[in-house]
Amino acid sequence: MKFARLRTSNGITPVIVSGEEAYDLTEFLGDITPNTMDLLDPAAVAAANGKLTRVSLADAKFAAPISHTGAVIAIGMNYAAHAAESGAAPPKLPVMFMKTPNTLAAPDDPFVIPARSVKMDWEVELAMVIKKRAYELDEDDDPLDYVAGFAVADDLSERTFQIEESGGQWSKGKCVPGSTPLGPWLVSPDDVVGSPLRLRSFVNDEPRQDSSTADMIFDCPTIIRHLSQYLALEPGDIVLTGTPEGVALSGRFPYLKPGDVVRIEIDGLGSQTQTMVAPEARA
Amino acid sequence: MKFARLRTSNGITPVIVSGEEAYDLTEFLGDITPNTMDLLDPAAVAAANGKLTRVSLADAKFAAPISHTGAVIAIGMNYAAHAAESGAAPPKLPVMFMKTPNTLAAPDDPFVIPARSVKMDWEVELAMVIKKRAYELDEDDDPLDYVAGFAVADDLSERTFQIEESGGQWSKGKCVPGSTPLGPWLVSPDDVVGSPLRLRSFVNDEPRQDSSTADMIFDCPTIIRHLSQYLALEPGDIVLTGTPEGVALSGRFPYLKPGDVVRIEIDGLGSQTQTMVAPEARA
Repeated sequence: MKFARLRTSNGITPVIVSGEEAYDLTEFLGDITPNTMDLLDPAAVAAANGKLTRVSLADAKFAAPISHTGAVIAIGMNYAAHAAESGAAPPKLPVMFMKTPNTLAAPDDPFVIPARSVKMDWEVELAMVIKKRAYELDEDDDPLDYVAGFAVADDLSERTFQIEESGGQWSKGKCVPGSTPLGPWLVSPDDVVGSPLRLRSFVNDEPRQDSSTADMIFDCPTIIRHLSQYLALEPGDIVLTGTPEGVALSGRFPYLKPGDVVRIEIDGLGSQTQTMVAPEARA
Repeated sequence: MKFARLRTSNGITPVIVSGEEAYDLTEFLGDITPNTMDLLDPAAVAAANGKLTRVSLADAKFAAPISHTGAVIAIGMNYAAHAAESGAAPPKLPVMFMKTPNTLAAPDDPFVIPARSVKMDWEVELAMVIKKRAYELDEDDDPLDYVAGFAVADDLSERTFQIEESGGQWSKGKCVPGSTPLGPWLVSPDDVVGSPLRLRSFVNDEPRQDSSTADMIFDCPTIIRHLSQYLALEPGDIVLTGTPEGVALSGRFPYLKPGDVVRIEIDGLGSQTQTMVAPEARA
């Protein structure tokens, strides 16, 4: 099952896609937020039972598939080749850092490169959205029971902020407003788990990253179980699972500049396109 | 002006203290949340004009002075002596990391030490709560215009999680549920700015930390202006400004164990007391 939030002239319309059809979830759950994560499975039942109104996806404009998210948690260095291109050894345990919730953005919105930025970089990532509270999961728990769905995310990163001005704590380069485009779809685990997914990124249609979730050092269930030993994941929290090799930090590609178009995609989860723009001159 | 949220038999009652009297803000703003940060100054006017109902603070039990906070941002190594006891050089720029919003806790609640924890540590800190969005402030902006108030916070930290199991990113040891007790009071800037504040912590009434905000490497305005170059601070965000020397990480004191009582206090902002408790046995 796929979920999305459409931008319409009336505001946001949350939808579910069932087969070839999309259905309006507004009356069923209001909006897709941390508070309605437990209504996604029932929404699928309601759609199957013909209780929802059909909507067209022609010319759909997508917002992020969840609003009002709480925490945005990210795993670093989770693909061995990316760790190597970043000058690091593969980690022995998942490495966790955080982004502010206000980095969440629509998948196709323009992205404003900050005036001080000189090293703006892309990172295609598989994102998980948490369905229910997960704390200290043990071996008897299935971590995917705690996942509402998967989505495409770009973990847009400013490397000067992240590395040179940070004292080693990466968050400073991970929180530029709008630096976590998410979507277009939130796809439930039963629709995507089981097969490795190909992740790709392009800048101005030139290939950059091209890898597979099979190359992750720590897979999605391992990440959820591991994080839950340290913190309580909450409904609506977003967990980014790391990016593969092929970013500008490697030195093989130039950093982003105004006018560049970043496209990222993951098998079965859709694609995003962000146009880089310069900040407006200050008054 | 001081604000607080009281736990009563009817739920939460937000209050303002004006002179010797406390007044109920429920009808005026509902609750103290990110969405009502712009109503704190008008609340002071309403209290002065006799438009609010008096409430008693006798036997008051305090919740955190804000609910539904968005981001919890923290500055590390901001007192030179603490950097030294942690084995680090004083930073040249503020070092930022983050805690999950669900770490926010009432100032005097018991704190559950996780089952896996062996190095649970205290950190008294001066906290700021953001009043309005702050992004890319320049020299003409007064950063304190963006601060709703100050409060006492304990940045409870698990050092094994933070240092030995983290790959160097501190957040993993900073997100134990309930590890950011805040309050009791949120005190507006005009009531506290201008004089250095003494910060102290005690474990079982034995002194641990005893320092002054005069010893901060980066002061509060500098922190706000600096952070705003990297991210947009939002109303209700909490910024912790670092802890002085005197924590267990120094090797001079034992880490916390169940039964220990931590008390922290800052001049003019009040004090907190947390009793450490063991986790309940799992079913």
